[in-house]
Amino acid sequence: MSGESLRRRLAAIESGALGIDACLAERNRRINALDGDIRAFVRRAPAETAAAAVAARGPLAGIALGVKDIFDTADMDSEYGSAIYRGHRPRADAAVVALARAKGAFIAGKTATTEFAHMTPTATRNPRDLAHTPGGSSSGSAAAVAAGMVDGAFGSQTAGSVIRPAAFCGIAGYKPSFRLLPVVGLKTFAWSLDTAGLFAAGVADVALLAELLTGRALAVPATDMARLRIGIYRSAIDDRLDPAMASAIAQAASRLERAGARLLDTAEPAVLTNARLAQPLIQAYESAQALAHERLAERDRLTALLRQALDEGAAIAPDRYDEARRAARQGRRAATALFDDVDILIAPSALGAAPASLETTGDPAMNRLWTLTGNPCVNVPGFVDASGMPLGISVIARFGRDALALAAAHHLERLAANG
Amino acid sequence: MSGESLRRRLAAIESGALGIDACLAERNRRINALDGDIRAFVRRAPAETAAAAVAARGPLAGIALGVKDIFDTADMDSEYGSAIYRGHRPRADAAVVALARAKGAFIAGKTATTEFAHMTPTATRNPRDLAHTPGGSSSGSAAAVAAGMVDGAFGSQTAGSVIRPAAFCGIAGYKPSFRLLPVVGLKTFAWSLDTAGLFAAGVADVALLAELLTGRALAVPATDMARLRIGIYRSAIDDRLDPAMASAIAQAASRLERAGARLLDTAEPAVLTNARLAQPLIQAYESAQALAHERLAERDRLTALLRQALDEGAAIAPDRYDEARRAARQGRRAATALFDDVDILIAPSALGAAPASLETTGDPAMNRLWTLTGNPCVNVPGFVDASGMPLGISVIARFGRDALALAAAHHLERLAANG
Repeated sequence: MSGESLRRRLAAIESGALGIDACLAERNRRINALDGDIRAFVRRAPAETAAAAVAARGPLAGIALGVKDIFDTADMDSEYGSAIYRGHRPRADAAVVALARAKGAFIAGKTATTEFAHMTPTATRNPRDLAHTPGGSSSGSAAAVAAGMVDGAFGSQTAGSVIRPAAFCGIAGYKPSFRLLPVVGLKTFAWSLDTAGLFAAGVADVALLAELLTGRALAVPATDMARLRIGIYRSAIDDRLDPAMASAIAQAASRLERAGARLLDTAEPAVLTNARLAQPLIQAYESAQALAHERLAERDRLTALLRQALDEGAAIAPDRYDEARRAARQGRRAATALFDDVDILIAPSALGAAPASLETTGDPAMNRLWTLTGNPCVNVPGFVDASGMPLGISVIARFGRDALALAAAHHLERLAANG
Repeated sequence: MSGESLRRRLAAIESGALGIDACLAERNRRINALDGDIRAFVRRAPAETAAAAVAARGPLAGIALGVKDIFDTADMDSEYGSAIYRGHRPRADAAVVALARAKGAFIAGKTATTEFAHMTPTATRNPRDLAHTPGGSSSGSAAAVAAGMVDGAFGSQTAGSVIRPAAFCGIAGYKPSFRLLPVVGLKTFAWSLDTAGLFAAGVADVALLAELLTGRALAVPATDMARLRIGIYRSAIDDRLDPAMASAIAQAASRLERAGARLLDTAEPAVLTNARLAQPLIQAYESAQALAHERLAERDRLTALLRQALDEGAAIAPDRYDEARRAARQGRRAATALFDDVDILIAPSALGAAPASLETTGDPAMNRLWTLTGNPCVNVPGFVDASGMPLGISVIARFGRDALALAAAHHLERLAANG
């Protein structure tokens, strides 16, 4: 069970080897067969949408996408993982959904999100082992792609909600530079942090999807990535790494080096430690305001976990928030400066493999900094622990250098696959 | 006919001289009497909301606010000035609306907005002279405050939609530092630019309203503002100023100087000219994505004016957008550096008084730069042209120095009033 290549599928459609109707019918069968166990979907596309998709034109015709239920869809309810929005039908598609449909993509359904993309787990299980969390908050999107039920999916990340579930499910996840993908029509949790992202089976797939959606040159090129200067990012939270993850990073580094890369250790400067520590405060303060209506007028329909988090956010004084924003601004500048010496950084995508539990979505500690700084970040699949569960490695590039992040991630993915 | 002071009203309520019910009943009568001519409101609060407001507690109890129909309200339809959203009832209040209600404010109704806060005029007329535009896109909010139908109102600005209508209607308008007020629940036009703002009769009123909404120390203090270093901002678009406006700036400068200020000429540096010229491109590119659903799936229900603007935005190559964003980033830094030499800047809020037409909402040329850079900006009322129509002057401060912008604007407003 593993995701299939969107890139190969599009090539087969273009060559005439595969029909759009056959593609979509196969995805439909696969969802029917698997989703009873995996529970990635909370809602399927209505019959009219499915019928229209067979006749779609455009570079994404024949491609089935999952959409995290934090994004609005005009043809399906959008409940944001909350009882407050039961049966809520938006008037408009979220911007990324409208753009995907305009390119011919079929939106196969809405995928499970934690409550407002916060921490309360969903019913979704990890396709690699059903006893493990798929990660969160984009739980359903990552699981749907990993199980091959869709060719790609939209997710969002405020702390670590794209990169972490991609890592836990063993697929490619791409968190673009801040605001490269619009978040219009995504239920806001924290406006300085919320970032729309993409999932697909492999890095080349997610890069092609991003290129077709944005009109930017992001599809991974055939150019030589061997001679990169690569920084291995080291910070105090490395102490919490699972030994298997520490060993995956060492393995990745050694493969990159053998392939010709120049490796450096990049120790986290104090200004980036400060920025990393400012992320939870910014998230808490902004979420209390973003969800003011829900916090104040719909308290009883929030989980206790989220209600408490929002109340804590509402108690933060504006001065402390302003101080955290200053730390963030300084952090963004420092994050740019990191790339004066290296082309890319690599770092663990999570502390280890997916926890063997459905009661937690795992820890976003490794992702908070890069969400705050807005640097592009790609999860590279292909590493595993002793039990065969996926371990993800992040490739991070300078703000705006998304094409480089994707190309380098693809390079590392191939090195991992070729052992 | 002129707005009344929110600050004095709150003081009267606190002292017991005025009852909440009497306050709200009087506002209601005033809307009934005047809005047939002015047409500021597109929708009034339902009876239950009005009944509940009489019993409200909190620092804003007894205060009636207008909400531009670009913000969501759970108790009133929210149509964004577009036929596409006819009868659209959001599930949640926009964040600022929820916060205002939680403080006890009565949301008296939704005020007219141009289509998605773009340029197509509304039916609203300027209370100072019904043949003149009130400005846009926050047309109804500015007019409702100017006519004394509400104590304050919410608006939003993407190019010049708070400061310009405030200037045209002769009231205080406050565009805070970028994201000081959350825009969650505001229909997005351009995410890098959309800024929530406030209107009230005078600067002290808008400052007090901002303080009560945000918990920040923004209410104007009694401290001495006489010895400010004030830059008179000069740029190439000054050539287009109406002579009456040029003379109002000169008058303001001379009053400030006589009161003890040190005046400097601040010529626009090239990097800020670049930033100013980048604003329309950023607005066009982002709006084509933000309104992707409407542009692609609801084309026929857009006005020709907006449809063309969105199509132009959709044709902008990502490279040009990235270049404009770099110009914006450099502009933000340069805008901060301007305040190394001065405490505040003053500049015209518009090219002149409100055009004597209902076919245009006027030109935002004077506002685009400060929206892009995110600096706090306050429209100071109290200046007039030969026919008695208001002329607005902007006080601009360093990013985050909102309290200083408001205090200095209050100082200038008092100098204007005392002749």
